[in-house]
Order: sequence, then structure tokens, then C-alpha cells
Amino acid sequence: MKDQVHAAARRARTAAATLAVTHRADKDAALHAMADALVAGTAAIVSANDRDVEAARAAGTGENVVDRLRLDAGRVAAFAQGLRDVAALPDPVGEVVRGSTLPNGLRMQQVRVPMGVIGMIYEGRPNVTADAAAICLKAGSAVLLRGSSSAARSNAAIIDIMREALVGAGLPADAVQQIPADDRSSATHLMQARGLVDLVIPRGGAGLIQAVVEQSTVPVIETGVGNCHVYVDADADLDMALDIVLNAKTHRTSVCNAAESLLVHRAVADVFVPRVVAALHEAGVTVHGDPAFCATDAAVVEATDDDHAAEYLSLDISARVVESIDEAIAHIRTFSSGHTEAIVTSSLAASARFTTGVDSAAVMVNASTRFTDGGELGFGAEIGISTQKLHARGPMGLTEMTTTTFVVTGDGHVR
Amino acid sequence: MKDQVHAAARRARTAAATLAVTHRADKDAALHAMADALVAGTAAIVSANDRDVEAARAAGTGENVVDRLRLDAGRVAAFAQGLRDVAALPDPVGEVVRGSTLPNGLRMQQVRVPMGVIGMIYEGRPNVTADAAAICLKAGSAVLLRGSSSAARSNAAIIDIMREALVGAGLPADAVQQIPADDRSSATHLMQARGLVDLVIPRGGAGLIQAVVEQSTVPVIETGVGNCHVYVDADADLDMALDIVLNAKTHRTSVCNAAESLLVHRAVADVFVPRVVAALHEAGVTVHGDPAFCATDAAVVEATDDDHAAEYLSLDISARVVESIDEAIAHIRTFSSGHTEAIVTSSLAASARFTTGVDSAAVMVNASTRFTDGGELGFGAEIGISTQKLHARGPMGLTEMTTTTFVVTGDGHVR
Repeated sequence: MKDQVHAAARRARTAAATLAVTHRADKDAALHAMADALVAGTAAIVSANDRDVEAARAAGTGENVVDRLRLDAGRVAAFAQGLRDVAALPDPVGEVVRGSTLPNGLRMQQVRVPMGVIGMIYEGRPNVTADAAAICLKAGSAVLLRGSSSAARSNAAIIDIMREALVGAGLPADAVQQIPADDRSSATHLMQARGLVDLVIPRGGAGLIQAVVEQSTVPVIETGVGNCHVYVDADADLDMALDIVLNAKTHRTSVCNAAESLLVHRAVADVFVPRVVAALHEAGVTVHGDPAFCATDAAVVEATDDDHAAEYLSLDISARVVESIDEAIAHIRTFSSGHTEAIVTSSLAASARFTTGVDSAAVMVNASTRFTDGGELGFGAEIGISTQKLHARGPMGLTEMTTTTFVVTGDGHVR
Repeated sequence: MKDQVHAAARRARTAAATLAVTHRADKDAALHAMADALVAGTAAIVSANDRDVEAARAAGTGENVVDRLRLDAGRVAAFAQGLRDVAALPDPVGEVVRGSTLPNGLRMQQVRVPMGVIGMIYEGRPNVTADAAAICLKAGSAVLLRGSSSAARSNAAIIDIMREALVGAGLPADAVQQIPADDRSSATHLMQARGLVDLVIPRGGAGLIQAVVEQSTVPVIETGVGNCHVYVDADADLDMALDIVLNAKTHRTSVCNAAESLLVHRAVADVFVPRVVAALHEAGVTVHGDPAFCATDAAVVEATDDDHAAEYLSLDISARVVESIDEAIAHIRTFSSGHTEAIVTSSLAASARFTTGVDSAAVMVNASTRFTDGGELGFGAEIGISTQKLHARGPMGLTEMTTTTFVVTGDGHVR
């Protein structure tokens, strides 16, 4: 398996050298050809997906996981449109990030160049296959796609169609390759192919991401674990706070930018806690609260530190009353995964204190945590949301899939 | 030892929370106080260093390594001045990298914030101790300094003086801490203190860097291994080429931006190879050449692939004649460490082909590889030269020691 993964990575490097000098127009034409081919191949994709879904059901997989795995004509059309959307975005390659003429006459430019070969390790969402291929291609990099074995047939169908379209568009098929998922070791070999693979991005649950971070020798960007907090300040508009808490928790529970923890300032707790608990219960949310919350309503479950640290991804929320904004910040610094925190306040001072005090990829002031999203923030496409500090933090688009080179031109300059 | 390293990292996190909200004026004042204290403490530093030097000589350490370790009043004054230079640089923290008002009225800003806690693992150059402390402090991060055991006394003297000056300037001493070097495991614990340390930067030889990359679970920036190439094109000005080869190879041999490999286009080989071999020999350089080079002069040693891959850091150079610029690019893509490559040419097409064809942190056109240096490129201060693609590539200054946060402000926005 190691030889097989390394051979794929070598083919990807060769393809990447071609992509690096491919003009935007040719990359965009390939993306449109791939989108057309995916729509034309809908029947084959859905048929392959049917077999994945059957196998998953036979294995007793939960329906929410099956739902993520399932494809129909509408979902295929949606990710095909995603490829066209990526084609419409500006090409990050070639952007001059900075440039100047140095005192000695050397002309220096820092230019954006492709990353090279990017490995994606992800769970059973076949739409990631098409999205990641499109973003990497547009950014001039080859991609090695190591999806879940549960989606192997769907992914193979999507990748075969995209590769054929690439060749038809005059680009190397090996710009997009599937790494076999029938053997767990293939992921390990991919993340340890140092020198052949430039970057590995894991997308999935906390366990997957932790395993990649610990085992990878290739540089990694951690994505997507979100224990996001909403803090309702002493100076909050409580109607606004209620809207934001409900939206952040219940708009979509299975996503990383959903709220998992609620903190309420003591000064508004008497009024707000009963209101928010009633509203959350009405929305079907289980509240895991501290004694102050538990005292409000017998249906509130007692919270442990595990609750405060949990990314539920379900209709559950942990909740606590804090004595001050500093206690809220300290609680968040202790328990947060560094994704997104929100404050609801009408105080400029509280807003400033909170935004500089927490240490997360995104901070929302009087807005739902759900806005930490490449599409919502106007990046066009998103390959994941980084929760690490190195290279990229927050939603990652095309630019984050590139690196830079310094090009320095002289007239025989020596030191 | 693990407990000791983790305790230091926790103290550093507390200090970092203070540094993150410390204004530039206060950080600059602390840097000046530290510089003054280092100069005032020269006798203590040099005395501690004398004992390190004696121990190194007693252990039979080579004189070139002892030279890097050795401090005198001039060297102390030089790194003290380095602290003042860092104080004069703009503060990267708080810079708004991008910002806009979104269609729904949300105001989005991406703001530069400190990294947090940075670990430095480095070899026996005590000046790195002062340089790294200054850069991390100015960038708002706390630093854990794990130097070589051979420089432990020198580093302790420098760090004690800096910590005392920090306290005098009203900043936390734990912004700068020494990690004991008497136990090899301290470096391992530092690079595996995930969640406590945000970034580890190894500075030293290839072995040190390889070990950190393989063992670290904290994100790493690889630095400084340089197998730099000079390619003399068919259209090169051969006088210029000779100057550049000699400067790149002999100006300073022990540095990562020195040239280690020479490639000459077949079209100019008959004229240029004898000239460059004679000049290199006259400068005391051993040439490890391919058959074409060996045929020129009996003193040329036959080159192996190990020579082509070597970072000699000495008066040695590998050399080869290539049939085309593409063969030169392919050779470099195979053997380079991705630091710096230079082309000497008067052809615009060759320059463009080379700069987009190689895949390195810096590409020089008609200039010596020695210009890949934060000081030379005008960055003011440099904490190392990254040879990886993630986060930073090439010389790293203050900006590269920061990350960003998205701050999004609404008026009760929900999705």
C-alpha cells in the first residue's frame, strides 16, 4: 500500500508541475468541462452511491450519517454548480503579495505560487470529493483524495468522471486521484509521504483530526472541530440574544459553527436564563446547565466539564452563569476549540474586551456563530475551516491553498 | 521533565495573554531596557560564555563550532543593538489584513493577532537567544528557548538579564523562559506540548530539523537547510556568472544561503567550465563534478548523487553540465532543499521559465544566492528562513510570527 500511495503522489507531483504553469483560462475551461461531465454522469454517480448507501444501511449506520452519504440528482447538480462557481473566482496564482526595489537596486517580488500536492483525508461526504478537486485545481495543485471507505464507490464514480473531463480539457488526469480507502494504512502512508505531499487537510470528526495531527509528518491544517460559545453580556439586548442563541444552536446542529455552549452574565441571569431555557426546550434542545440553570427548570441536566468541552453536533447545549466578562473569557480560553465565539452586547468596551480576550479563529459581535463560513464571508469557495494558527485560520478558500516564492532580480549583484 | 516543560508552557500562556494586549510603546520600552541591561551585563555574559567555551574545547569540539558559540563584548553589543532594531520596526499586531461590509450588512475584519507561545529549539549560537526573544516579544508572543546544552551557561546569563529587564519594564518575566538543555527529553516534551505551545521553530543542522519535524505534534516551521544551486544559462554573461558563483560559494560557507551546487548549460560549458574550475580551485574550493567537469582538471573529484544532494557548508561544490534549462530545472527539483536557486542569464524567456519552473522559497535572477536573508530583503529582523510551504516561506520576520482572527460585527444577524 505504501508503494501504491507513493506512486500516486509521484504522479501527482508531475501533474502539479504542469498545473503550476497552466493559465487560468485553461483551468476554468477544465472546471466547466468537469461540471458538465458530472451532470451528464448523474445516473452513474447516483447508482454507485446507491450501493454505498445500501452497504451503510446493512452495516447498521445511523440515518444522519447515511443522509450525509446519500446523493441524488439535486445534490450532484449542486456540487457541479460548485465547480462552475470556483471557475468564476479569481486565480490566486501569480498574485504579487509584496514587491519593492531594494536600496542596492535588487528588484524583489513575493509571488503567490501553487502549494504542489495536497492530500485530503475525509469522512463519508461525497460532495467534498468534487469541492476539494475544484479548489485544488484552480489553485494550481494536484490533489490526492482519501475519502471514507463507506463512500468509496461514490467517490470513484465522481473521480473517474472528473479525470476523463480533465484529459478532454488537455490537463493531466493525475491532477485528481483517489487513494484507496479499503485499507486504513493508506491514510497513514499519505500523511507520512513527506517530500512527496506538501500539505494534508483532514476533514471530519475530532477523532480523525486528532489521528492525523499526531501521525502526520507532512504539514497539516487542522479543520473544523467547533465548540463555539455564545456569551450574553450584562449589556445585551435580550431579544437579540435569544434570537442569536436559538439560531446558533438550532439552525443546523451537525455543523462546526453551531453553538455548543452558552454563557450568561449574572446581571441578566434572573431575566434571561428562564427565557432562554424555555425557548431552547421548546426547540427540542437539552440544556446541560450549572446550578443556576438547573434551579430554573427541572428539565435542565447537570453539566460536567465534559459537557463544557463537548462538540455535541446535536440538540444539546452546555450553559453557565458567569460573574463577569473576564470569567466568560477565561471559561472560553479553557474549553473552546478555537473556532468561533460570539458576544451579545451593546457595550463598545465589552465588545473590544471580548474580541481581544478570546483566542479563536473568529469572533462574532451581535451575530450568530453560523456566519463563520467561507460562503457567508464572501470567499466564494471553502475547503474547510482552520482551527489552528499556522498558515490559515478560519474559513480557507483558494488563497489559503497557495504558498509564495521570493523572486529577486539583479544585474550581477553579489555581497 | 515533562511536568517542568508543561509548567513553563502554562506560565508562558499566562504571560502571552498579557503580551497580547500590551501596547507597542510598552513593548518597545522593554526591548530598549533589555538591550541596555545586556550591554551592562556584558562581563557576566562573557564570563558564563567562557565556561561554555572551555567545556566545549575540553570535549574536543571543532573550532568552527566553538567560534559560533564564543561571545565577546562586540558580539554582545551587536545582539543588544539587534533588540533596539526590533523596537524600531512597526508592530504587526492589530494590522487589518482585509475588511469589508458584507451584502447583509455584517462588518468583517481579518485582524493580525499574536501567535501565543512559540518554542525555539536551536543549536549553540547564543545570539539566537536574544534575537528570538526580541522578535517574539515584539510580535506579542511568549517564547520558550531550548538552546544547546553547550551554550546553556551563556543562554542562562542572557535570559536572566532579559527577564529582569522585562520585570523592570512592567512586563511578565515569563514572556521569556529557558527550557533546560541538560536532558535531551526537554526538547521532545516542548515539541509535543500540543495545546500549550502554538508553534515550534527548529534552527540548526539538518539532523535537528528532521528530528523536530518527525517527532513534533505542535505545528512546526522548518528552517534553513540550503542546498542552493547556481545555474549558468546558455545566454549568461560569463563574467557575471563567475562573480556570482564565487560569491555564492565562498562569501560565507557555513550559512544556509551559500551555493552548494553549480549547473552549467552545455552551450557555454567549453568556455565556462575551465574558467570556473580554475577560479574555484584558486579560492580553495573542492569541485565535485560530473564527467564533463572531471575532464577539465584532474583536481575535480567525481560527484555522486550524495554530492548533488549535499549541503556542504564548507569549501566544496557539486557541479554538472546540463543539456538544457529544463534539465537544470529537473535536476534542481530532484536535489534541492527548496531554499534558494539562482539563474545567470540575459534571456527574459529563460528567466521566466526558471523562476516558475523551480519550486523553492527564493529564486535569484543575476544575483547571488546570499541575498536570501531577512536583513538583505529589508525585513529588519529575521527569526529564520523557512524552507516549507506552509505559513511562511523564505526569510521570516515579525509578521510571520503572528496569526489572524476574523472579527465580524452585526446588529443581531442570524441565518
